[in-house]
Amino acid sequence: MSKGEDTKAAILDEAVTIASEVGFTGLTIGKLAEQTGMSKSGLFAHFKSKEALQLETLERARLRFTDLVIRPTLAAPRGEQRVRVLFDRWLAWEAEALKGGCIFVTAASEFDDQPGAMRDAVLRSQQDWLEFVATVAGAAVSEGDFRADLDTEQLAFTLQGLMLGYHHAARLMRDPKALSHTRLALDQLLEASAA
Amino acid sequence: MSKGEDTKAAILDEAVTIASEVGFTGLTIGKLAEQTGMSKSGLFAHFKSKEALQLETLERARLRFTDLVIRPTLAAPRGEQRVRVLFDRWLAWEAEALKGGCIFVTAASEFDDQPGAMRDAVLRSQQDWLEFVATVAGAAVSEGDFRADLDTEQLAFTLQGLMLGYHHAARLMRDPKALSHTRLALDQLLEASAA
Repeated sequence: MSKGEDTKAAILDEAVTIASEVGFTGLTIGKLAEQTGMSKSGLFAHFKSKEALQLETLERARLRFTDLVIRPTLAAPRGEQRVRVLFDRWLAWEAEALKGGCIFVTAASEFDDQPGAMRDAVLRSQQDWLEFVATVAGAAVSEGDFRADLDTEQLAFTLQGLMLGYHHAARLMRDPKALSHTRLALDQLLEASAA
Repeated sequence: MSKGEDTKAAILDEAVTIASEVGFTGLTIGKLAEQTGMSKSGLFAHFKSKEALQLETLERARLRFTDLVIRPTLAAPRGEQRVRVLFDRWLAWEAEALKGGCIFVTAASEFDDQPGAMRDAVLRSQQDWLEFVATVAGAAVSEGDFRADLDTEQLAFTLQGLMLGYHHAARLMRDPKALSHTRLALDQLLEASAA
């Protein structure tokens, strides 16, 4: 990466942190200037508009999600083991990656009723993710670890719900059992899927 | 109810609709005046502050939730049948009751990082609800419909996740399969709990 690209990545990492804490609606160029020590006019030159900043921030979060969740999942052996790595990496993302909580969940609740480029981008990233989960589960079917009649789309749907439940319990309710409940529910999902 | 109480209930119903669509943060006395045709000063006399309006609106939503979900659940025979009625009524609440989506989910994501009276009230209502679900499941255990070693707190946790997943899929993703996926996941949960 050039120095300019490094700088932009560092700014966007800061933007991801802000969006995770106060939402994309609260992610303003003014706030970003405050946190990075850069001038507002310099940031305007980078991003042009608030929506462009939101879109680039979401894209930066996708890159980080790919590094932290998708790459290690694909590095694991196909089959149940890969599904387990996927669960673990996703939980780690939810639990550790962002102190304000998962940025995609935040984006989803902010833009669900606001048609536009951000809503489209959030929607696409969710579809990509659900398809990825179904594909990883499908590999466990073809490897013979999961039963042949498993509905992999249904599994992805259930998993998404469990992760939203984890986010909700851990964030809102500060439930000390959120992680153990989620792990048990994931184990039950694996058991129900086994060949 | 007196005429004054009727008026207040009608105003709060309007407030519930607004909060469901634009969130509690977007629920201002100005916006409520616009929607009800009442004067701002009249509404200030009723509610004194934005936080008081938010708290009374949440309480009104709790009352409606009690009427639409909790009462019919308790009217059903104890055991698996009552659990099924609970699932159905909760789905109906999510799907039909509020066109902007479940107001408690909205409140949870708005106030999770904002300590104060609203966060406390949202938290309490969630705790009450999870305890209610666990109690209804516990009755199915004591009636012999569910297995004796069922972890009813775990069941409530999983159910909460499935409902958040339904909300997410139906609202954000406009997923035409959201309801059928959720129903199937609920059936799987009943099967896994059966004695």
